[in-house]
Amino acid sequence: MERHIDEELQELKEKLLMMASLTEKNISLSIQCFKEHKEEIVQDVYKKEETINFLDIEIDQICMKLLALHQPMAVDLRYIASSLKISSELERIADQAVNIIDRSLVFINSHPQKPLIDISRMASLAQSMLKDSIESFIKKDVDLAQNVCRRDDEVDEMNDQIFRVLLTCMMQEPTSIKRAVDLMLIGRHLERIADHSTNISEEVIYYVKGKSIKHHCAD
Amino acid sequence: MERHIDEELQELKEKLLMMASLTEKNISLSIQCFKEHKEEIVQDVYKKEETINFLDIEIDQICMKLLALHQPMAVDLRYIASSLKISSELERIADQAVNIIDRSLVFINSHPQKPLIDISRMASLAQSMLKDSIESFIKKDVDLAQNVCRRDDEVDEMNDQIFRVLLTCMMQEPTSIKRAVDLMLIGRHLERIADHSTNISEEVIYYVKGKSIKHHCAD
Repeated sequence: MERHIDEELQELKEKLLMMASLTEKNISLSIQCFKEHKEEIVQDVYKKEETINFLDIEIDQICMKLLALHQPMAVDLRYIASSLKISSELERIADQAVNIIDRSLVFINSHPQKPLIDISRMASLAQSMLKDSIESFIKKDVDLAQNVCRRDDEVDEMNDQIFRVLLTCMMQEPTSIKRAVDLMLIGRHLERIADHSTNISEEVIYYVKGKSIKHHCAD
Repeated sequence: MERHIDEELQELKEKLLMMASLTEKNISLSIQCFKEHKEEIVQDVYKKEETINFLDIEIDQICMKLLALHQPMAVDLRYIASSLKISSELERIADQAVNIIDRSLVFINSHPQKPLIDISRMASLAQSMLKDSIESFIKKDVDLAQNVCRRDDEVDEMNDQIFRVLLTCMMQEPTSIKRAVDLMLIGRHLERIADHSTNISEEVIYYVKGKSIKHHCAD
């Protein structure tokens, strides 16, 4: 028996929100692991990552079924197409959590040392962009989505600044090289979380307004 | 007057191939620019990047029109859904060409020096993965697509190895730090080209066979 499209759209929404919530959690755990060097967090992140990957495939299947069995139009069609893309973005954000965890593992069991640079502000900004991109999706809030897009430049600038500071540190103090390179890479992982959150926000704007703002977001 | 779906599918294919060809060209130019430090290449890459971004939006629009006006089923539906994703992958690969160009600019006008490490092999491998992922799409060649997926691990290992060698170089010879960090980042850009080419190949397999192999490609 064929179900009504609304029921299936609701199922899609629930899966996407589950995936978004797990992704946010994993990013938060990976940053905590980087700061506090707690080994017990690692397995938790890997386990959630498996569920996220599973949900990515499941969401694709639900979208394809919706497209094949119903003839969605207008906002429903845009919602399904955006869901296909948003789940890919979430999956890639979750990959960054694993990257941060893997990079953090080198610090575990090592003698704690003062970080060369405070990367926390950049982490908070990337996390807030992820959170707001998901909220803009839930609330169909175009203003919030646009606000996320605007914050992307800020993260890029912050990353460039951290990069320059770390380069100087390495040249002045060669014993800091390994640690500085790891911090540079964690900066890049955070930058990519911001990029993908911007992509999600662009999809939200497309889904709600029916107009793509890709590639000229600042306008 | 509504056109037949086959005509529109043909238009979609032509746009995707145009985008793929420009993307391949830009990656090739960016690697040439990195090796030969030729400033005249830079503007050419930026110009092609604009066209690629434009095609990305155009392909999305064609796909949405196809889904809305026709009721594509089975292989046609999978082709359209895969096209939506493949164009996003190509656009992100093209972003890596710009990243490589931007990173290469620091070498232009500087005194040519022997590179610390030969990054050419990794560049060739990433380029061949991109080329083959596109060919697997054109020829609906699942074996070739699977072959691309398998090569991804090789690029990852190569990147890890380059990373370790460069780290040692930096520690032994601090004057090489800036150059080594730039090479590390170019290695990461190449790794991402390989990742996105793998994603394209996974989409090709899904489109041809109707079965997702995401997240367990090695099986």
